[in-house]
Amino acid sequence: MATWKPVPFRDVSLEGRFWAPRLRVNREATIPHEYLQCKETGRVDAFRLDWKPGVEPKPHIFWDSDIAKWLEAASYSLATHPDADLDALVDLVVALVASAQQPDGYLNIYFTAVEPERRWSNLRDAHELYCAGHMIEAGVAHFEATGKRALLHVVCRYADYIDSVFGREPGKKRGYPGHEEIELALVKLYRATGEDRYIRLAQYFVDERGQRPRYFDLEHDENADEWQSDRRARYSQSHLPVREQDAAVGHSVRAMYLYSAVADLAGETGDADLLAAGRRLWEDVTGRHMYITGGVGSSASNEGFTTDYDLPNPTAYAETCANVGLVFWAHRLVQLDCDGRYTDVLERALYNGVISGVSTNGKKFFYANPLASNGRAHRADWFGCACCPPNVARLLASLGQYVYSVAPGEVAVHLYAEGSGRLVVDGHPVTVRQHTDYPWDGEVALALGLSAPARFALRLRIPDWCRGAAARVNGQEIDVAAATERGYARIAREWRDGDRVELSLPMPVERVYAHPDVAEDFGAAALQRGPLVYCFESVDNPGVPLPHTLLPREGAFTATFDPEVLGGVVVVNGTGAAVEDASVEGGLYRTRRPELRTVALKGVPYSVWDNREPGAMRVWLREV
Amino acid sequence: MATWKPVPFRDVSLEGRFWAPRLRVNREATIPHEYLQCKETGRVDAFRLDWKPGVEPKPHIFWDSDIAKWLEAASYSLATHPDADLDALVDLVVALVASAQQPDGYLNIYFTAVEPERRWSNLRDAHELYCAGHMIEAGVAHFEATGKRALLHVVCRYADYIDSVFGREPGKKRGYPGHEEIELALVKLYRATGEDRYIRLAQYFVDERGQRPRYFDLEHDENADEWQSDRRARYSQSHLPVREQDAAVGHSVRAMYLYSAVADLAGETGDADLLAAGRRLWEDVTGRHMYITGGVGSSASNEGFTTDYDLPNPTAYAETCANVGLVFWAHRLVQLDCDGRYTDVLERALYNGVISGVSTNGKKFFYANPLASNGRAHRADWFGCACCPPNVARLLASLGQYVYSVAPGEVAVHLYAEGSGRLVVDGHPVTVRQHTDYPWDGEVALALGLSAPARFALRLRIPDWCRGAAARVNGQEIDVAAATERGYARIAREWRDGDRVELSLPMPVERVYAHPDVAEDFGAAALQRGPLVYCFESVDNPGVPLPHTLLPREGAFTATFDPEVLGGVVVVNGTGAAVEDASVEGGLYRTRRPELRTVALKGVPYSVWDNREPGAMRVWLREV
Repeated sequence: MATWKPVPFRDVSLEGRFWAPRLRVNREATIPHEYLQCKETGRVDAFRLDWKPGVEPKPHIFWDSDIAKWLEAASYSLATHPDADLDALVDLVVALVASAQQPDGYLNIYFTAVEPERRWSNLRDAHELYCAGHMIEAGVAHFEATGKRALLHVVCRYADYIDSVFGREPGKKRGYPGHEEIELALVKLYRATGEDRYIRLAQYFVDERGQRPRYFDLEHDENADEWQSDRRARYSQSHLPVREQDAAVGHSVRAMYLYSAVADLAGETGDADLLAAGRRLWEDVTGRHMYITGGVGSSASNEGFTTDYDLPNPTAYAETCANVGLVFWAHRLVQLDCDGRYTDVLERALYNGVISGVSTNGKKFFYANPLASNGRAHRADWFGCACCPPNVARLLASLGQYVYSVAPGEVAVHLYAEGSGRLVVDGHPVTVRQHTDYPWDGEVALALGLSAPARFALRLRIPDWCRGAAARVNGQEIDVAAATERGYARIAREWRDGDRVELSLPMPVERVYAHPDVAEDFGAAALQRGPLVYCFESVDNPGVPLPHTLLPREGAFTATFDPEVLGGVVVVNGTGAAVEDASVEGGLYRTRRPELRTVALKGVPYSVWDNREPGAMRVWLREV
Repeated sequence: MATWKPVPFRDVSLEGRFWAPRLRVNREATIPHEYLQCKETGRVDAFRLDWKPGVEPKPHIFWDSDIAKWLEAASYSLATHPDADLDALVDLVVALVASAQQPDGYLNIYFTAVEPERRWSNLRDAHELYCAGHMIEAGVAHFEATGKRALLHVVCRYADYIDSVFGREPGKKRGYPGHEEIELALVKLYRATGEDRYIRLAQYFVDERGQRPRYFDLEHDENADEWQSDRRARYSQSHLPVREQDAAVGHSVRAMYLYSAVADLAGETGDADLLAAGRRLWEDVTGRHMYITGGVGSSASNEGFTTDYDLPNPTAYAETCANVGLVFWAHRLVQLDCDGRYTDVLERALYNGVISGVSTNGKKFFYANPLASNGRAHRADWFGCACCPPNVARLLASLGQYVYSVAPGEVAVHLYAEGSGRLVVDGHPVTVRQHTDYPWDGEVALALGLSAPARFALRLRIPDWCRGAAARVNGQEIDVAAATERGYARIAREWRDGDRVELSLPMPVERVYAHPDVAEDFGAAALQRGPLVYCFESVDNPGVPLPHTLLPREGAFTATFDPEVLGGVVVVNGTGAAVEDASVEGGLYRTRRPELRTVALKGVPYSVWDNREPGAMRVWLREV
């Protein structure tokens, strides 16, 4: 039923002054930096399997996944930007990984070199199938990027072995991963190889999840207390059979990967129950649990979901991996029916809570992405648990795939960005050339290249943040409102080489308000311009006590591109109301309302905060 | 140096329509209810020491303290309201307690009946000295209330035994309690008996606390990691020697009891370092860690203090015991120099976060006292850890002691309440009769009764919440501002029988603002009238969505005594701005500011919330 297919990233170029520098930094700084970190921390050489008790560093249960995600990112980079040195390095690492594969196909550093006797003994906590999933994704990526089958062969052998271990057949373990990931990876492997057994195994893992008795209770001999069992199971979304779930619970990265696999499977099989569950979960996540930045999973305590509308700003967890996972999930859903509500969230997360995860120099990373700081939250070079850095790297290195989709007789433009895409619609090659300064500006000109005229519908996404979109086809105005269905303006006609579509997406600075049940933001506003959420940082607002600043209800913010700020961003300028210093003095409680003074406020995109000198940051300001 | 002495509660009557019903309920409902709960849960009979392994209920390490606090409350009640049945019951319980005392003087249910081999083995966690402290307080209370020495004798023997176990002398343990309490109890025992060794033991416990190496690290063989050791030590304020401390940390009840003992010892000994430490801690607690209700200890996770200005409302812990402890501490400090800043806090806590701990019928109790609820926070009949209910009971049963103090040539009136006090100033008996409807009204008439004229200064507290206080002596206006020093208007003259002082404390409904560093309350206001903090409850505001309600910056609230509400309270009425239902609909984020509608708001004193049908409650409303 998934009638839409993303146009592969290797057929899409992303240029222009927003993405080109970021993608270059990802290629030239982040991917090498991450390899060095992996190398220096022992993650690469751990595949030699020569660890001895007492030696530090001791391989960790999720190291395989760090290397796998790096391989995936590096492979994507090779696909768009051939680089002989990187290619050789990737081959070396692939050979090292392959050398660690056991005769039966098993492949895991920790459970080969450190605790071989405990293989598959702690599916709940030990990340074994999670690591397998990431290596499978790497194998598919490496094959598709380079045509080389070395790693694909390894992961097929591993997947076949896993298939022999897990399932409902007699003699197999009826387990499933504590940290989901392998499900979506197996769908990728199925698509790359055409082998049904991989999608059947993915389906098994999704369907078995949450069945009674709970596998993890049996595994840990802990099924005595129903309440405790339930609490533990919610952490990994194994409290209920997946198709019965309707609320996002537990660890948010796990949830995003599971939900992505649910969308994949529903798309491949047309399973209506699974699709319905996925849509219920989408409504829950995006309607009650998502930050304005597209961050999900508000609490550090469970790295995940809490109660409805619980979205604290300074302690926001909003793990970079979870935000990346939300992009993965949205992207899969939008292929099912090309509904803009998924793309709107994809864009929100991508432009805010995802790319905030990496510094502008590409070498520092946020694990949590708070929406307010008093100056203590900063990116780090690396993490003991280093899931986030390579997750952003692999997403950016394959970013082109999010721009276009095709379906029979249809072309969808999901994202706007300077660059071009090579598509095939009903067998006709079509190039789409976008000329735009998006997201700094909402004017987009699309030029079509065709070898011969072809009839198809072009769907142009009209973002949810935009009101008053206008479009012209070859200079002739079209009625956007009338043409728009589910968030896309659909223009069906015979297209000819050189046809030109101009789209105007008015992009004023707007105040955004949260649902009033978000207690933290009640009475507050945030600024957004186009897809970009803004924030205020001390460095741009010297002398303004941001934690003591309100936003007057009246007063507009202006937007200006400033080439001097952060390599060139649109800054917003307006007026705030800060508590007078004299009104800060005094005890905890006073009967005098704090006196306010007018202050100039300057905001920058949230995604680039904390790239200059440390200080306070605020996304939401309470209105006065 | 403690020149001021509280007038004992047995010499003070509290009448009038605010306190009389509460004290009657405490006597007639709470104290009997608490005995029944203790009896039914096995706490009383546990003193028979006949527990056998496998039998439920198994005595708990803090059960002794529940009985002790009940004995203390019951004794105070007997002192003011003789009751033969209660007297007999108390004698029975005292006999039972006495029967559990071991030949060496030791007295503890758990470590006699359950784990006798582990006596004094876990001072950090096992509440052994804490229980001892409460029993000592009970012994002193019972003796002072009834003149009976049975329990006093028991606790003296126990204290003597403890004195033989702990100290710096060779062969003694250099330990101190994990949960402070015995320190202030030993000062009470010293005052009741005149035996110096008890105050020396209290001084030892305070002085030894926080010395290196840390006793609790040695006890648990856990001193390897400095950071961990420090973190653990902060929980029980044993991270630093007490006289070096300047910030409130850790478990808040422990802190309040320790700080109370510090004030006691500083008062008894004139120890300037200890006094200075206590004052620094006071500034920290009341300047950065106290709710407007006088609640302290904002986090459930450590039942205690967190970072400066971290005062979340819906999750406020503000344990009833901690708020009671703040009253104890303030009361001790005010005896040192009769400074109204202590009494102001005492009154704030007493009228708000302390009496909120018990329902108007006296039989339900809050452990935590949140300042906002969406309808799920309710009082309970009892708790597994039942420290709070008898703590409020003992405070209320001895409430009179907080009203007056005397010093050579001085009489201080700390609190205003209908009733009278019998004082002795420089050997002259003086009665003070207060006629007032306080806190419902700020008019207070004080009539003095003397057998002969006497020269002394009468200090009348001018509360910090009051502006424009006026006073007349025998009808003649005095200049209150000129007469006021450190929060008390001091009127020195020769007083004669029948002299009359009239005090007018204007009591408008006022908006209170928090220090702007209290992020939770930034931009918000609370209502206070006199000492009473107000809150809004759903039951009084049908149709008003309190979690979606703002407070317009303009607009006064009026105060009216309503005999129909909660047995008669002053309600406040004014106008709020609630989000229109239509503006609640929609997604998480919108560019339309929520539309507001004007709603009538009715508030009741915070102390009586959750005594009617369940629903939302708010103390703070953000202003608009």
